[in-house]
Amino acid sequence: MKSGIFIEPGKMEVRNVPKPTIQEPTDAIIRVIRACVCGSDLWWFRGINPAKSGTAEGHESIGVVEEVGSAVTDIKPGDFVIAPFTHGCGHCAACKAGFDGNCLEHQDNFSVANQSEYVRYPYANWALVKVPGKPEDYTDEQLNSLLTLADVMATGYHAAVSSEIKKGDTVAVIGDGAVGLCGVIGAKLLGAGRIISLSHHEDRAKLAREFGATDIVAEKGEKAVEKVLALTNGAGADAVLECVGATSAIEQAGQIARPGAVIGRVGVPQAEPKSNQLFWQNKGLRGGVAPVTTYDKNVLLDAVLKGKINPGKVFTKRFDLDHLQDAYEAMSNREAIKSLIVVANQ
Amino acid sequence: MKSGIFIEPGKMEVRNVPKPTIQEPTDAIIRVIRACVCGSDLWWFRGINPAKSGTAEGHESIGVVEEVGSAVTDIKPGDFVIAPFTHGCGHCAACKAGFDGNCLEHQDNFSVANQSEYVRYPYANWALVKVPGKPEDYTDEQLNSLLTLADVMATGYHAAVSSEIKKGDTVAVIGDGAVGLCGVIGAKLLGAGRIISLSHHEDRAKLAREFGATDIVAEKGEKAVEKVLALTNGAGADAVLECVGATSAIEQAGQIARPGAVIGRVGVPQAEPKSNQLFWQNKGLRGGVAPVTTYDKNVLLDAVLKGKINPGKVFTKRFDLDHLQDAYEAMSNREAIKSLIVVANQ
Repeated sequence: MKSGIFIEPGKMEVRNVPKPTIQEPTDAIIRVIRACVCGSDLWWFRGINPAKSGTAEGHESIGVVEEVGSAVTDIKPGDFVIAPFTHGCGHCAACKAGFDGNCLEHQDNFSVANQSEYVRYPYANWALVKVPGKPEDYTDEQLNSLLTLADVMATGYHAAVSSEIKKGDTVAVIGDGAVGLCGVIGAKLLGAGRIISLSHHEDRAKLAREFGATDIVAEKGEKAVEKVLALTNGAGADAVLECVGATSAIEQAGQIARPGAVIGRVGVPQAEPKSNQLFWQNKGLRGGVAPVTTYDKNVLLDAVLKGKINPGKVFTKRFDLDHLQDAYEAMSNREAIKSLIVVANQ
Repeated sequence: MKSGIFIEPGKMEVRNVPKPTIQEPTDAIIRVIRACVCGSDLWWFRGINPAKSGTAEGHESIGVVEEVGSAVTDIKPGDFVIAPFTHGCGHCAACKAGFDGNCLEHQDNFSVANQSEYVRYPYANWALVKVPGKPEDYTDEQLNSLLTLADVMATGYHAAVSSEIKKGDTVAVIGDGAVGLCGVIGAKLLGAGRIISLSHHEDRAKLAREFGATDIVAEKGEKAVEKVLALTNGAGADAVLECVGATSAIEQAGQIARPGAVIGRVGVPQAEPKSNQLFWQNKGLRGGVAPVTTYDKNVLLDAVLKGKINPGKVFTKRFDLDHLQDAYEAMSNREAIKSLIVVANQ
C-alpha cells in the first residue's frame, strides 16, 4: 500500500510499504478515505523539531474499518469511523473525567501513519467514533467536516471548553490557523456573545467571521493588546483561547484576559511561559491535548451531522496521496489554511 | 493611638501615632477590635522580602465604624464590620465577575495598618462587610471566626473555588498553615468527598481532621507524591489546593493532580514555576488574590453566623496589641498556627 514517509526536513515521499496487520487484540485496521496535514506536522517538516527519517506520518483520518482484533467488540468491519488522534480506554479515571487525551491506561496515546491507504489503530474499541451509514451517504463537504473531528475541530473546541466560556461572554481567540478557526466555532457553540479573532491574514479573518467571529483584530503584539482592551472597555476578554503555543502568545493571552478569566490553551507550548503574573490578576491557565473521542461522541459529531457547524471549510486546498509533498508545502508556505488529502473516493 | 510599626527584620514596635482621619470621601475610619498576623507578614518580618522601616503593618481586622466619608452611603458609624484586605468597588468588570480582589477601579487594592487601634479603610462603601448586631453579641470564638473573614478563610476558600471542586471529589490540600487549614474547610463547604491534607505537623494535622480532612499525608517531597497517588489508585486528586506558594509546592501540586484537574493556588508565588508539564497532562492552574468581600457576602459570613464553619480555631495563640512582637515571634517560630491580636475587648 501507499504511505507518506518523512525523509528529511522539507521532504515527504509516498512509498509502497506492507499493509498493516492486527498486532494486538485491541487493534483495528482502517482503510483510509481522507487524511490531512496538521500544523504540528510542520514542526518536523520545517526542521524545527527533529523527526526520524523513514517514519510514516499523519495523525488524522476518517475511513472504513477492515478488520478488528479479538478484544474489539464495539466496532466491526464495515463501520465508517472517525479515527481520533487520541486513544482513550474510556474507563480509567482520566477518561471518566472527560480527559481521554490523557488516558492513564497506556502511554502510546497518539496516532501515527494516517497519511496512508491503511492504518493500524490501537485501542480501537472505545476510542474510534462510529459515523452512521457509509462514506457514500455524505457530501464532500460533510466528509471534510467529519475529518476535522479526528483532531483540529476537537482541539479548537478544547481551547473553548478549557477557557470556561459562559453564555454571553466576550471571547478572544489568539491564532487564526485551522485550530484557532475551529476555536471560533467552539466559542460560538458554547454560547459566546462576542468573539474577537486576532487574525493577521485576510482569508483567515474572512473564515473566522463566517464561523462566528464578531470582531477582527489585525494588529500584532502590543497594538493587538491595546485594541482588545479598547474593545472590552479596558477590562479584557472574559475568556481567551490560545491556539498558537508560542510563549509570546501565552503571555499575550494573559494581557488581554480580564481578571478571573481563564486562558484555554491548545497550542503545543514551546519555551516555558511566565505564569506568576497570572497569579496577581487571578487569570487561569488550562488546556492541553483534546479529549477527542469524548467531544466527538458528546457534542461534535451531532453538530456536524445536523449541519450546525461546518469546520471542513478549513481545508482550502485538496491533494491526493501521491501529491503529499505538495500538501505539506501548501501549508508550510501558508497557501492553504489546512491541506486535505483525499486517499480514496469512498 | 497605638499602632504596630515595622522597625527592621525581626522587630516590630507599638508606637503612639496620630489617629487616622478621613482623607477621601470613600474612606471609613474603623475602631479595631481584633487583628492578626498573616503568613505573608512573615516574609518581611523574617527579612526575606524588603519592607520599609517605619511602616504600619497588618491587613486583617474586624471593628466598629467610627466615621465615614461623604461618598460612603451603605456603611454608617456604629456598624460592626469585617475589613477585608481587598477593596473592590463592586461594579467594575472584575468585581461583577466575582474577582473584587482584582478591582479595576483602583490600584491600591490592599489594606495596611490594621495592627492598630484605628484604621483608615479606603473604598469602604462596597468592600466592607457588615456583621449583624454589635461585637458584644458574639462569643469569643465567633469573633475569631469573623476575623478570619478579613483574609485567611476567604483565601483558603478561594483555593478551593479556584480548584473547581465538584461534589464528591477527592481533593488534596498542600500546606497546613492557617490558609491550608481554611482550604480544608473550603473544600468541605464545596462538597468534597475526600480531603487529603499534606501536613507534617501533628497539631495542624489534628486541626485539619477537625475541619474535614479524611486523610493525612505526613511524608514530604517524592514520598508525599507517592502516597497521594497510592491513595487515589494511581490517578491523582480530582482537585488540588496549593496554599504555600513555593515553586516546589506548585510543581508538587502538578504531580499529585489527575489529568484534567485544576490546581487552585493562593500561595503567593516565589520563583516562576514550570507550567508546560501541566499542558501535557491537561492540568490547570488558577487562583490568586481572594475576592474576599464577594465570598464573605455570598457564602462565608452566613456559614460563620450559622456555626457551620469555625475557622477561628486557626488562632492558637492570643496577644494584646502591646505584645505584637511576641505575636510575630510565635508565628515565625511556628509556636502558633496563627497569632490573634485582641486590640479592644469590644
